[in-house]
Order: sequence, then C-alpha cells, then structure tokens
Amino acid sequence: MTDPRLTRLAQGLPASVPFVGPERLERMRGAPFVARLGANESGFGPSPRVAEAIRAAADEAWMYPDPDMHALRNAIAAHNEVAPENVMIGEGIDGLLGNLVRLLVAPGDSVVTSVGAYPTFNYHVTGFGGVLHTVPYTGNFEDPERLVAKARETGAKLIYLANPDNPMGSHHSAHMMRNLVTNVPAGCLLIVDEAYIELAPQGTALAVAPDDARVIRMRTFSKGYGLAGLRVGYALGARDLIAAFDRVRNHFGVGRVAQAAALAALGDQDWLAQINARVADSRDRLAAIALENGLVPLASATNFVAIDCGADGTFARAVLDVLATRGIFVRMPGVAPLDRCIRVTCGPDNQIDAFAKALPDALAAARRHA
Amino acid sequence: MTDPRLTRLAQGLPASVPFVGPERLERMRGAPFVARLGANESGFGPSPRVAEAIRAAADEAWMYPDPDMHALRNAIAAHNEVAPENVMIGEGIDGLLGNLVRLLVAPGDSVVTSVGAYPTFNYHVTGFGGVLHTVPYTGNFEDPERLVAKARETGAKLIYLANPDNPMGSHHSAHMMRNLVTNVPAGCLLIVDEAYIELAPQGTALAVAPDDARVIRMRTFSKGYGLAGLRVGYALGARDLIAAFDRVRNHFGVGRVAQAAALAALGDQDWLAQINARVADSRDRLAAIALENGLVPLASATNFVAIDCGADGTFARAVLDVLATRGIFVRMPGVAPLDRCIRVTCGPDNQIDAFAKALPDALAAARRHA
Repeated sequence: MTDPRLTRLAQGLPASVPFVGPERLERMRGAPFVARLGANESGFGPSPRVAEAIRAAADEAWMYPDPDMHALRNAIAAHNEVAPENVMIGEGIDGLLGNLVRLLVAPGDSVVTSVGAYPTFNYHVTGFGGVLHTVPYTGNFEDPERLVAKARETGAKLIYLANPDNPMGSHHSAHMMRNLVTNVPAGCLLIVDEAYIELAPQGTALAVAPDDARVIRMRTFSKGYGLAGLRVGYALGARDLIAAFDRVRNHFGVGRVAQAAALAALGDQDWLAQINARVADSRDRLAAIALENGLVPLASATNFVAIDCGADGTFARAVLDVLATRGIFVRMPGVAPLDRCIRVTCGPDNQIDAFAKALPDALAAARRHA
Repeated sequence: MTDPRLTRLAQGLPASVPFVGPERLERMRGAPFVARLGANESGFGPSPRVAEAIRAAADEAWMYPDPDMHALRNAIAAHNEVAPENVMIGEGIDGLLGNLVRLLVAPGDSVVTSVGAYPTFNYHVTGFGGVLHTVPYTGNFEDPERLVAKARETGAKLIYLANPDNPMGSHHSAHMMRNLVTNVPAGCLLIVDEAYIELAPQGTALAVAPDDARVIRMRTFSKGYGLAGLRVGYALGARDLIAAFDRVRNHFGVGRVAQAAALAALGDQDWLAQINARVADSRDRLAAIALENGLVPLASATNFVAIDCGADGTFARAVLDVLATRGIFVRMPGVAPLDRCIRVTCGPDNQIDAFAKALPDALAAARRHA
C-alpha cells in the first residue's frame, strides 16, 4: 500500500528500481556467480595504491569526510586542466545525475534521451516529475542530430548522451561531439556521460572550454579506476552550474575512505594504462568468443562488449537466463532493438574462460526453446 | 551568478551549506587542529573489528555495493527486533532525511521543528520548497507539546525532534516520547532523530510497534559506533513508508566498504559498551572543567556536553574563536538562546587535556573583548 502522506509526485512514482544487483540474483539462485561480468565493473581491480590508501584511511573512519573534498577536488581539477570551481564530486554519477535533474527539472519539464540509454538517468527524471522524450539509436549509436531535434521540438531542459555509449559500447569522435555542443538549444544543458572515457581511444573526451555553460561532463572512478564499491563520481562544468550543486547536495555524502581511495586511484595513471591494455585484450577475447559462436561482437570503446545474438530480445534474454543458471552474470539492454544483444564485461581470463565455456550451451538451450 | 536554467525552486535556494567542515577551518588557519572536539565524532574510534572489515573489504572495492544491502539490513532488523521491511539504510541520517523530505514535502507544505535544532534537516526542507515553522526550546529541551500544537496549527506534514537532543544534549524519557507519538496529528509524520541513542541512558529509545505509521526513527553509525567517515545511517518505520524510499533513493549510494564496516560495528556490542563507559568518563571530565572555569555544564545523554558560558551568543562565539586559534575545534548552537553555550565533544584524554588547557585563556580573552 502506498503511504497516503506522500506528495502527489511521490505517490505516482513506480516502486521499481533501475537495476537488480547481482547479489540478489545470487540469493535467488542460492549460490554465488562464477563470473561477475554484468555490471561493467573492473575485475582487474584498482591500483595497489588504492588498497593501501583504504587501509590507511581505515584509521580515520571515525572522522566525518571533508565536505569540500578539497584534496580530491584539486587533484581532479589539475588532472583535467580546469579550476576546482569547475568540479563537483558526488556519490557516483548516479548521485550527481540525481542532483542535476533536481536542480534543472521542475515537474512537467522536458528531457531528451535515447531509447535504451541509461535507466538511472530516466529514474531521476521521472522521480522529479520531468517528462522523458526519447529518440531511437541510429544503428548502434546514440544519434546527436535526433537528440538535438527532439530537444528543440520539446523545449527540453536536458539532453543526455553517453560517450562512449552504454549499453552498446559505441563512441562518437570528439569532432562530432563538438558539433553536438554547438547545436544545443539555448536554455538546454547537454549531459555527456563519460563514465567509460578512460577506456576509450585517445581523443574521444569532449574538449570544451571549462566554463562552457552548454554542457556538463560526468566522470566516475567506478569503471577504469576500478572503484565501483566506493561511490565516487565527478562532474565537470561551468562554475555557476557547479556551484548550484551546493544548494542541494548531501555535503557529507562522499565518505572519507572513498575520497582517499579516489585520490590514490587518480594518482596512479600507470595502473590505468595497464588496465587499458588488459581491457583491450579482454575485448579481443570476447569478440573472438562471439565470432566462434556465430554471433556478432560490436566494436567497443569501453570495458564491455555488446554481442548481437542475431535474433530478438526474447532470444537474448533466454541466453542470458541460461548463462545465469551456469553461474555467469551478464546483463543486456532493456529495449528493442538493442535487446538483441547481451552485454559482457571485460575481466580476468578465468572469468572470460567461464563465459566462453558456458556460452555454446546457453545458445543451444535458447535455440531449443525458440 | 545563478544559472538561469535552474528551476524556480532551485533559483531561490540559498547557496549556504549546513556545516563548515573542520578541514576548511584548518586550511584557513594554516595548521591542523590539536583537538577535534566539534563534530560529535567518536575520537575513541570504531571497534577494532571495523578496521579489519575495512581492510578485508578493500579487496572488493571494485564491485558495486549490494543495492539491497541485504546482510546489513537483516542485521539491523534483528538488532532492533523488527522486520527487514521496517529498515531503510542510507548515506547517513543526512541522506535519509533528504529522501524523506522529498517523499513527503511538496512546495508550500508545512514542517515543524525547534529553533536551533538540526540545520541539515532545515536545509532539506527548504531545498524541497517546504515551509519551516519553529517553536522555541523550553529551557534546554525540545518541547513536544509546542511541536504538536504548531503542527496542528499549520497542518504540518512532518515534525522533527531529536532524542537525545543535539545541540543541547538533553533527553526525554521513553514515556514522554510515547505521549508525543500519541498526539501526532493525522496526516503528519513524527521524525525522531535518535543519532545519539546508543549513548543515552537505557530506556531512552522510543518503543513503538514496528509498523506504527505515525513515527519514523533515525539512527546512525556515525556517533556511538564511530563511523562518521563512512556515511551509514538507517531509518526504522512502517513498511509502506520504508518501501517508498526505493522510489527516490540512490540505490548504490551506500558503498561496499561502508556496508561491511557497519556490519562489523553492529556485531561488536562489547565495544559499544566500552565506548559508553569512556564517553561517560569524558562527560564527567568536561563537566568538571566547565565548573572549574565558573561555567555551567548541561546534563548530557550524548557524547558531547553543552557548556553554558553564562552570557550571550557573542560571548560564546568569542570563546569559540579563541579556542580555534589555540587549535581546539568545537562548535556551538546557531541561534539564541541556545547560543550562550559552546558544544564540546567527548574524546580521549589528551584531546580533553588540550581543551582544558586552552579554556581559561579563551574565557579571559573573550571577557577582555566583551
């Protein structure tokens, strides 16, 4: 039953959540997964310096975190060659998206995204009463021209685009992204979710003036840096917009251990380079495994590969379900036509081996039931 | 400049934040504090088991946290003898209060609290467009009758009361709190912030049926359990209300290391008993120091002592400022008449020694400038 004291807006919200965690699936199946390849985490782990930093920070866990996040904010600013005032750190990109939507989207305001793009962004938009308008992907790509056209048509406050894209793994060039920025309608803000940017080809990152008010870029320590468990993301944007987060954010939201770990991760760019090499190898292995099984791996600029299973969403879902029964956790896009794919995260060889071993049977079983 | 794309509500919000962190004060003074006694943290630290748990969880930092927080939620439920469905865990009480206000308070809705009570709660109410109505403390106590009367008068959606109280350290008996619950107007929810409950006399905790919809209780691992740096709090309430948090919360907001640490902390009740003994000793010391200096220590059911400096807020502020120049971080209530006090956190002897040493000079200096 819904509590009758909820606001009208809250009464109308679905009780559903953006993602079911693999831990719940493990509880349902009564056993842990053999391979955890569904959440685009970094199975290669963070830099050894991070573990050191976490262990050192354990002794400071009794102290509230610095709400200014001064050391980490300055380090992120220096790393990205912007001023600290262009940086806001939050509880993952998820937390930052929530606050950004809250700041810009009043009930009834329009927001534009692609069909099948990031569910948690949609969750926040709906959660604050925004009206989602969607455009389809063009092939395996989010389509900047369609997004802009829809934003003009609907007078949107926000456009969301991930580059590289999740769940398809595709990416646009920095040049194409620059064109997109140029075309953002007045009064609208473009969110470029660069969660996977550290794993993308050099030059993919959007290059704009730090105080360009047309765009806000989102980054995370959850993917390349391997710190999904600590919840640290950041936004890069114009200082007036960045300053506005202070009006609504949970100031102590990013913990002390998390800040220390992220600082250590940022400081070990050599580790990130090694991760990039390992992710590239793993992508190649996943592509080969797909091809060996008669499936089509999509080109990826991320730490996952979307594998086109060659039929519809029902078939891909069946493959996914059989994989789960074999202890392989992978996810898939939620809507057609993207849901012809399953999305497999890169990882250590033993994890990929387990996937390779289970896939032929999963395909056979899915075909029997098709 | 305010970004013109912000919602009307966000445009009108003050840019101020509820608390300035001690780290910023340290940066301003150019040196670390000698004694960190201002944020009601536990300078005694968490259980040694917590440090172990953090170190163990460091190796799992690459994995997203369980968004269901299954193990911790079940442990909290068992500890409080309620069902898991009566428990919601969040990014500290601060994070939970934000989501609760979001769920219940639409722009223009009335909310009742006491003048000088928790600033972060007020921040959230204002942040969602709620209208704050306040009643004064009666002496050093939040006044249940006044709160209820104001709630009836204004048709409030929420009443906020902390028991034990922050910043005064006073507490109400469970009996008095039961009466308060009985008087909550229909359509209104009573928030009982029990952040300090683990440090209060036995029997202070509100005893209500787990599904009593009139009240929600807030707890934290930041105070008695000594985990302020990890951001874990929880709410106990009726299951329909608790379930509503899933509609708006940041599902991955409580990190993996934080969940593991909180679970370890909850599991070491012996440590908590030791902390209670140490806090009691420290309270006695702070009271004695106050008396030695001709000041009046208020009775406290928490890990801090409010010390009445015997004059107005300007005087107490001067004492606080001189203490800060001597490297002693303490805080004080923000508004009259509570601001005749400074609020000093319990802590290890060397920290209290430093406060004892600095206080006479601080009082003398403040008197010279009075």
